[in-house]
Amino acid sequence: MMRPLVLAVLFLSTAAVAASSPPHHPLDPLSAAELSAVRAAVLASPLVPARPLSFHYVGLDEPDKPDVLSYYAAASTSSPAALPQRHAFVIARAGGQSHELLVDVTNATATVLSHAVHRGAGFPSITDADQAAAMALPPQYAPFVASVRWRGLDVGDVACGVVSRGWFGASQPDYGGARVAKMVCAVVGDGDGAATANVYARPLEGVTLVVDLDRMAIVGYEDTGVRPVPKAQGTDYRADKVGPPFTGPETKPGVVVQPEGRGFHIDGHVVRWANWEFHVAFDMRAGTVISLASVYDADAGKWRRVLYRGFVSEIFVPYMDPDEDWYFRTFIDAGDYGLGVSAVPLLRGADCPANAAYMDGVYLDAAGEPVTSEDVICVFERYAGDIAWRHSDPYMQITEVRPDVTLVVRMVVTVGNYDYILDWEFKTSGAIKLAVSLTGMLEMKATAYTDAGQIKVDAHGTLVAENTVGVYHDHFVTYRLDLDVDGTSNSFVKNTLVQMRNTGDSGTGTPRRSYWTVRREVAETEADARVDVNGAPPAELLFVNPARRTAVGNEAGYRVVPAGATAASLLADDDYPQRRASYTKKQVWVTPYNRSEKWAPGLYAEQGTGDDSLAAWSSRDRRIRDEDIVLWYTVGLHHVPYQEDFPVMPTVSGGVELRPANFFERNQLIGTRPPSEFTYQNCSCGAAAM
Amino acid sequence: MMRPLVLAVLFLSTAAVAASSPPHHPLDPLSAAELSAVRAAVLASPLVPARPLSFHYVGLDEPDKPDVLSYYAAASTSSPAALPQRHAFVIARAGGQSHELLVDVTNATATVLSHAVHRGAGFPSITDADQAAAMALPPQYAPFVASVRWRGLDVGDVACGVVSRGWFGASQPDYGGARVAKMVCAVVGDGDGAATANVYARPLEGVTLVVDLDRMAIVGYEDTGVRPVPKAQGTDYRADKVGPPFTGPETKPGVVVQPEGRGFHIDGHVVRWANWEFHVAFDMRAGTVISLASVYDADAGKWRRVLYRGFVSEIFVPYMDPDEDWYFRTFIDAGDYGLGVSAVPLLRGADCPANAAYMDGVYLDAAGEPVTSEDVICVFERYAGDIAWRHSDPYMQITEVRPDVTLVVRMVVTVGNYDYILDWEFKTSGAIKLAVSLTGMLEMKATAYTDAGQIKVDAHGTLVAENTVGVYHDHFVTYRLDLDVDGTSNSFVKNTLVQMRNTGDSGTGTPRRSYWTVRREVAETEADARVDVNGAPPAELLFVNPARRTAVGNEAGYRVVPAGATAASLLADDDYPQRRASYTKKQVWVTPYNRSEKWAPGLYAEQGTGDDSLAAWSSRDRRIRDEDIVLWYTVGLHHVPYQEDFPVMPTVSGGVELRPANFFERNQLIGTRPPSEFTYQNCSCGAAAM
Repeated sequence: MMRPLVLAVLFLSTAAVAASSPPHHPLDPLSAAELSAVRAAVLASPLVPARPLSFHYVGLDEPDKPDVLSYYAAASTSSPAALPQRHAFVIARAGGQSHELLVDVTNATATVLSHAVHRGAGFPSITDADQAAAMALPPQYAPFVASVRWRGLDVGDVACGVVSRGWFGASQPDYGGARVAKMVCAVVGDGDGAATANVYARPLEGVTLVVDLDRMAIVGYEDTGVRPVPKAQGTDYRADKVGPPFTGPETKPGVVVQPEGRGFHIDGHVVRWANWEFHVAFDMRAGTVISLASVYDADAGKWRRVLYRGFVSEIFVPYMDPDEDWYFRTFIDAGDYGLGVSAVPLLRGADCPANAAYMDGVYLDAAGEPVTSEDVICVFERYAGDIAWRHSDPYMQITEVRPDVTLVVRMVVTVGNYDYILDWEFKTSGAIKLAVSLTGMLEMKATAYTDAGQIKVDAHGTLVAENTVGVYHDHFVTYRLDLDVDGTSNSFVKNTLVQMRNTGDSGTGTPRRSYWTVRREVAETEADARVDVNGAPPAELLFVNPARRTAVGNEAGYRVVPAGATAASLLADDDYPQRRASYTKKQVWVTPYNRSEKWAPGLYAEQGTGDDSLAAWSSRDRRIRDEDIVLWYTVGLHHVPYQEDFPVMPTVSGGVELRPANFFERNQLIGTRPPSEFTYQNCSCGAAAM
Repeated sequence: MMRPLVLAVLFLSTAAVAASSPPHHPLDPLSAAELSAVRAAVLASPLVPARPLSFHYVGLDEPDKPDVLSYYAAASTSSPAALPQRHAFVIARAGGQSHELLVDVTNATATVLSHAVHRGAGFPSITDADQAAAMALPPQYAPFVASVRWRGLDVGDVACGVVSRGWFGASQPDYGGARVAKMVCAVVGDGDGAATANVYARPLEGVTLVVDLDRMAIVGYEDTGVRPVPKAQGTDYRADKVGPPFTGPETKPGVVVQPEGRGFHIDGHVVRWANWEFHVAFDMRAGTVISLASVYDADAGKWRRVLYRGFVSEIFVPYMDPDEDWYFRTFIDAGDYGLGVSAVPLLRGADCPANAAYMDGVYLDAAGEPVTSEDVICVFERYAGDIAWRHSDPYMQITEVRPDVTLVVRMVVTVGNYDYILDWEFKTSGAIKLAVSLTGMLEMKATAYTDAGQIKVDAHGTLVAENTVGVYHDHFVTYRLDLDVDGTSNSFVKNTLVQMRNTGDSGTGTPRRSYWTVRREVAETEADARVDVNGAPPAELLFVNPARRTAVGNEAGYRVVPAGATAASLLADDDYPQRRASYTKKQVWVTPYNRSEKWAPGLYAEQGTGDDSLAAWSSRDRRIRDEDIVLWYTVGLHHVPYQEDFPVMPTVSGGVELRPANFFERNQLIGTRPPSEFTYQNCSCGAAAM
């Protein structure tokens, strides 16, 4: 990303920044007022004269890390700390080009600082405006109308949506470098209103359009033939269509009551709870961004940094059907659409429990209008009935138990059919657990099959209902985690468990023939830190701070502990989608801190080639020992659909835990109050609110 | 196990069975009355005249499976069903031999049906009486007294406990076939009362005794030298010793309130909740036994079996220190001690939340007296704030969310230092999740080291505090799961995900170069069903019922889904402990149903050789296709200790999920009520009970 400094006053664009509720933390997301000022500054700038101009990304351009750390250090000593300059980074489309702008929003007047045109491969995200405008095109396109009528339907019964065509090199037409995408369609009505809201269950199989999103015109079309449209019956998921009667399993309701009130405090974007403090922000591409997460060390009497900044960098969802209508479905959700843009309002009391607090997010739509996503992040204390630690000693008649309470920061990102529940769970043990839960709908393919016994070739999926195949696919959710374990200078350690023989001269002479021990290796360069967590022999992976040792001389560290969902990509290395997300062959990568290395498949991920991706950066084999280093962790799931996934999927989960490892002198929870002080009686609720 | 039928009335022993609260389900555990009748019958029998006689195992001898299934089928049709005969299986020690007896407790008079003497390797469990009696021996043993004084301590400051010496073939003395064990010791006082309750933190390193448990005499002794005793300060975990002040993280309390009451019903030992029904029993060796777990299929309008019987078969915990005092620490907890015997009373409101119900267990102690373990199992509905399924459609302005509620059946088993929280979690999706959570204390080794920098050789562990090494070790928790997927005749299927090329003549002609598909293999014999779940390429594992197909022709099945903790043993195959638990090299084994194959390392696990173990049975390579088959799943963790594990360990978890896979026609939860019907206001609690 080039950032030339433009000095001539003549070229500065200015716009007023509203003074209301100014951000007061350097990592606070851009406010609606700042966003509006960005829009005005960009549109007033002579640097991008082409129109129309659409905004595809506007977000806080992360301040330089040393500036943030200085600010943070000064703030904690109660000295007045000057906020670093606030900049917005903008990607806009105009004149058939992708434009990068840096806009200063520090002052009342917003100023365009720099501008560059993207010359490489790939495009910015597909916007809601792209979708809305493109949806209107097929009904005006004669071949599409013919295809629909050939299937005995009306164009009013069908709706189409834009999906990335991926990148397949010269195997796909270039369209003169235009920003093109595919469109796939579904049957949404039966002539007299919507027969089902589950559009994914009734695809209009065989019809694919190619749309030029900048000219907003259909430029390609294919109809590979009629397949039956799966029936609507049994596909809906709306409560008022499913029942009454509701025949599903009956459970009694439960409400978490906090008799002493909530345990967390939200001050602007800073959350404080138990022994944790962190900053929560919203970004239109990353969704939730957690920054400056620090844990209180009761023995040392001070706050210690764990995570400087963490967010979901990308969600790669390749489908495993190589046929004409499906081969390109290799979604890269953050880059193609934006996770923050796709985040949905949380349903209070259902997506999050009754004791949750909510935060909004705001971003600019394509036209540059601020859009507020209400209730897009929730924060709640979880009382799952788990145990934090316990011990019974029957001989001494001792029982000590400490129930566990955790803090969850949740966002739900719905990208088309799939709903991703993305949780950051903070534990009083000092651990942070990142969890990905998947639900929503399968992506389904219409087929003539009505019985699995009819299938004689590879159907690339499971017959989940009549005429309906749930196509095989993968999910790879990649986190960028700039861990700063008690400071910025860290190392990456692999502690491999190796079998040792205890025989002969090198043995101890006891009858034991073997045991395992730990062989410690410190990664020198990036090549040492590409890890398949399912490999053998097993290894524990840590970020350590070599300059911080405990009282008994162990290096302070945090361990990276996979928590299920450790699938790695099975695509061939030379396959186009795999080249774009080649990092998905290993769950763990470590790179030196680089502010521009944020998005695992690259900044321009939509139709990107992977030339500017995590694996490409890592191939530079840079030094990562005693450096400011970043962890990239990918949660992976292979999905073979089953009928239980139809018409909606029961939630499945996986993730990773960052767990203190010789970070503390001892278990921080040894000093927690026993539960006898917390026994409440007479807990009840008033009448149900219907 | 031999079961000769003894016909002569002369040899029948009889005893009265009390008529109060007779069991009314064939799988109900033996009641206190039945247990007492067993004792009386055994002691009255001329078949085992030697005295003293100690009881090491007394449990329900599982009725023949066809009889139970017939009973169950008849009961569900409201026809009177005759209970199968009730038998108790007994292992007793007398005259230096292990005696197996089968005792009929069906009628008011208990009758010994058969008797056999165990001629093979291994011994039954070490009892609490063994422990109590053995503890009294060291202070009377002169070399021990000398060792204690050499260390500047009084014998009153030290206590010793019995641990299995494992099996090491001819490398350990035979002691004439006597039932011997080791004893290891800890410093429990400092001359003026207990300095810490955490005996594991202050081992009396170097001192090991050998005790003959039948003669109750010390028969061996070793003192390998004085090591410092770690200081007591900072090791205690009792609330009144740790504080006030309590300096640990502060959280606010939370209570789950159920405004419409509890959703589950317990009728005797049968639990009914939502769409689940199952039987819960207590066994002194297995702990919790779940039987006849069936799920209601709303579409089919009937109950369908999932799990005939499931329990923890063994917990193998080998330590990785080959030194003289440690090499033998290769615990086999169910066989060495019994998980039910080791189960502790649950602390209400802490081990289990406020909305839990509790069940007791009863077993016979060594003397044959019934021991009631109060509150040894709890059952509760968990409202963790998770989501069962959801979908948002912003275009159609639809949001549908169903919060998740699950049912947990919990037991805590404390074997010396370690506390195992063993959960069976039932989900309305039709899944059952088995979870193992570990807490309690590390097994610690005293050492001269006060700083990790002093360590120049392999310490076989982590220096977790001054003079204290947390020794490396593993946990392997093996479940025996007799899945009966909609019937007894099942097959085991491996669906391997294989990469396919899409190039050349066998390709589709699209630009996509690869994808994965599923290659299905049905296991014919046991050799086909020994699976390393971390192997490549990945595979989904299912129990299917080939005779049950869905409406679209898929085989009904349940999938075995690892949920973290998939470690496999790293010991050498020829190492003695590994020979005893060789099954720990694979997480998954499948065997044909065999009522005597219950305990993975064998019936006589204590000092057993592995000759009668899961791997030995499996080596018969029996047919498992279209058979009544049993799943053996091992949850495995490697434990490299960290300072956070000191003085007590924060809970870590792992497990496995049994998940319906084409078992149902569709997601059972599509017909659940929306949460809008469950919004309660004004939930609060009365004053805290201090």
